[in-house]
Amino acid sequence: MNIEQFVAQSEGTWRSMRSGHSLAFQQFEDVLSEVQIAPLEASDINVETLLKSSSLNDANSSVQAPFRMTWSAESDWEPDDPSAVSSGTCVIVPVPINAERGHLLRSVGYAESAPAESEYCFLDDGTFILTTQYEQSLAEERIWFVSEHVRCRSSVLRTSAGSGVLQTSFASEVRRLTS
Amino acid sequence: MNIEQFVAQSEGTWRSMRSGHSLAFQQFEDVLSEVQIAPLEASDINVETLLKSSSLNDANSSVQAPFRMTWSAESDWEPDDPSAVSSGTCVIVPVPINAERGHLLRSVGYAESAPAESEYCFLDDGTFILTTQYEQSLAEERIWFVSEHVRCRSSVLRTSAGSGVLQTSFASEVRRLTS
Repeated sequence: MNIEQFVAQSEGTWRSMRSGHSLAFQQFEDVLSEVQIAPLEASDINVETLLKSSSLNDANSSVQAPFRMTWSAESDWEPDDPSAVSSGTCVIVPVPINAERGHLLRSVGYAESAPAESEYCFLDDGTFILTTQYEQSLAEERIWFVSEHVRCRSSVLRTSAGSGVLQTSFASEVRRLTS
Repeated sequence: MNIEQFVAQSEGTWRSMRSGHSLAFQQFEDVLSEVQIAPLEASDINVETLLKSSSLNDANSSVQAPFRMTWSAESDWEPDDPSAVSSGTCVIVPVPINAERGHLLRSVGYAESAPAESEYCFLDDGTFILTTQYEQSLAEERIWFVSEHVRCRSSVLRTSAGSGVLQTSFASEVRRLTS
């Protein structure tokens, strides 16, 4: 698996079931959402802007398979509260080092909303692992395909110091097959 | 990581938060439970019985790090219904082929309650992967440590035919540190 294949396999619209676990409070949060992943051109202005404002802003940085991720979620906590519906969009730009690993830029971070620079790699079974150092925290995300149309996504968020695990999450994502 | 190290790291009492996702019905099931993992002697009668009744019943099968797993769960679906509290115990017997992979016998299966024979292997980052062929279904479980005292466990259950994913689950487990 390389990043180009991985992004190609991820393209489309996904119906996501996501469970968040707050370990300190032993609280669950279950969210249904729709996630869209659509390719962008490397020449897209959003891709170029993100690259230029990053630490990878040099002539040797070669972008591969950039895409846009858009999500709209409906939390089950407050079904009658419209403010519980959250949505967003994010530009994601992989910058490979080699076939197995590289950098990944995001216009919006996962744990904090500022732009984020992550490192990714693939395990020997094709599992994608993304590690992001935020100001206050360290996030590890894993994505693996269990079939062509089903993928799993987990995350672990820990304190920057490294040892305290704050929360985890897991999403089961099924491709929406439309004509 | 080998099976002996993995079992040693797993020993103890874990407070588990587990979310089940039913993909067809888009239903969540969140369960808090306690899981205990305790080593057994290879000469334990339960270990010997399980090995003898398995397909690995030959003189060359060498057991390593067998253990007992006991769990007691309290579902959040029916907080007032005592029958929603489920618990159980299971003898688990690894039979390595080499350092990275092997067979694993269970007195009680995960997807079906009959004894189960699984195959396990470790990915290059130490993630433990367990695959079990049941009569009606195929289960893949993954366990990985995110720190010494926190581990994650995911499962994917699909139809025996192989393509249909029925349900997934994810558990965040925190070691209970007692004096």
